[in-house]
Amino acid sequence: MTRFALRIEFDGGPFMGLQRQATGPTVQQSLEDAAFAITGEQVTLHSAGRTDSGVHALAMRSHIDIQKPFEPKRLMAALNGKMRPDPVVVTACTIKPDDWHARFSCIGRAYEYRICNRPAPLTLDRGHAWHIAQPLDHQAMHEAAQSLIGLHDFTTFRSVHCQSASPVKTLDRLDVRREGEWVIIEAAARSFLHHQVRSMVGCLAMVGRGQWAVEQMAKALEARDRQALGLNAPPDGLYFVKAIYPDEE
Amino acid sequence: MTRFALRIEFDGGPFMGLQRQATGPTVQQSLEDAAFAITGEQVTLHSAGRTDSGVHALAMRSHIDIQKPFEPKRLMAALNGKMRPDPVVVTACTIKPDDWHARFSCIGRAYEYRICNRPAPLTLDRGHAWHIAQPLDHQAMHEAAQSLIGLHDFTTFRSVHCQSASPVKTLDRLDVRREGEWVIIEAAARSFLHHQVRSMVGCLAMVGRGQWAVEQMAKALEARDRQALGLNAPPDGLYFVKAIYPDEE
Repeated sequence: MTRFALRIEFDGGPFMGLQRQATGPTVQQSLEDAAFAITGEQVTLHSAGRTDSGVHALAMRSHIDIQKPFEPKRLMAALNGKMRPDPVVVTACTIKPDDWHARFSCIGRAYEYRICNRPAPLTLDRGHAWHIAQPLDHQAMHEAAQSLIGLHDFTTFRSVHCQSASPVKTLDRLDVRREGEWVIIEAAARSFLHHQVRSMVGCLAMVGRGQWAVEQMAKALEARDRQALGLNAPPDGLYFVKAIYPDEE
Repeated sequence: MTRFALRIEFDGGPFMGLQRQATGPTVQQSLEDAAFAITGEQVTLHSAGRTDSGVHALAMRSHIDIQKPFEPKRLMAALNGKMRPDPVVVTACTIKPDDWHARFSCIGRAYEYRICNRPAPLTLDRGHAWHIAQPLDHQAMHEAAQSLIGLHDFTTFRSVHCQSASPVKTLDRLDVRREGEWVIIEAAARSFLHHQVRSMVGCLAMVGRGQWAVEQMAKALEARDRQALGLNAPPDGLYFVKAIYPDEE
């Protein structure tokens, strides 16, 4: 048995999310079906994050175990060939020790959220960003974001469907910056709750539009109540961008 | 009558090009139909460039004449509302003197061509870039590109359907640079022949893949023969990015 670590890029638009579902196409199904077609083996894809329907990945990290020997680059090319035309590709493939686990060995995860902030609707970036027409105060957003940094009970920013044992997490970074008509939000933590990034971004947008004072963010956090949530941002603008492992640091 | 100068962004994928065609949807038709719905006037869209099917624009420049008075920002919002869901939007709208012409007043045009140069196929950028799996030597491409700079007969790089009076043009800039897995080509001239940028990029890709020596580019130019063309690059990677006008310099 060989454990292959995969770096995966996908457009979340046509998928029901990363994890296999009974109800529609998923990234996991596309990749496991391709692996079966190549190897004849029923493999299971394990991934650093579980992204929702419509959420994208620039560099998701996953692994599969295969009994037959394969040269990593050939396996990657074969998987990419079989997954066509689904918008998911393996961008890197390496062999890892059997105790390396894409999910359980992962010690850090990073997401990026892209808001296109201009009067005109989206064209080329449709489905790949959140369009907000009203001017956003990105500095107020960044200031409000800092009140979420550290160890907190993130119940307010957690989906009711979240399966995490505890709502207490440590948020390492939540930075908001402007690049022309784009407002980019970067979030980093050891792990996130279900919908946490989208919930935080939704509330930051409330601040950016002036519907919430900067201080409202800390109050929403302290409430530890999903009802205190201002808004859940759409999946379109969310990208899984990085997973960190001790052996790669 | 008021002349409105428009800055237009569009995803060329679903269009048969910018210019109105009898056979399918075009950017011009989408915009003229929207203007008619708003004003009741049959307007004609004049544009700095004529882009082909599948070619995109980040900042095409155009104009329309409207008899009824309109506040530019309201006209822009109304056009964007009516053009939905077509992937074309007006990103800026200003009033210009009657003798300002989007095409004839334009003294400079710039295109960008995006090549994604990596083994894995495209996902998020599908339809928005040219995917080339073999490693490209971008420095050789840049060197070859410089042999096209200046005043030349560009017959080799001209579509047989080109309607320009002369194949002689001055190419001001053709720069090739790498940004990670992306190879970006920037082209600037007062004006271009039909298919000129895609023809030049196709030949640069031949150089980048080592199928053409750097010197082959000058020979292809000197041949002044469409048969000397190596390859016409696909429209997917091409973006109209800038038009220059004397009154805006």
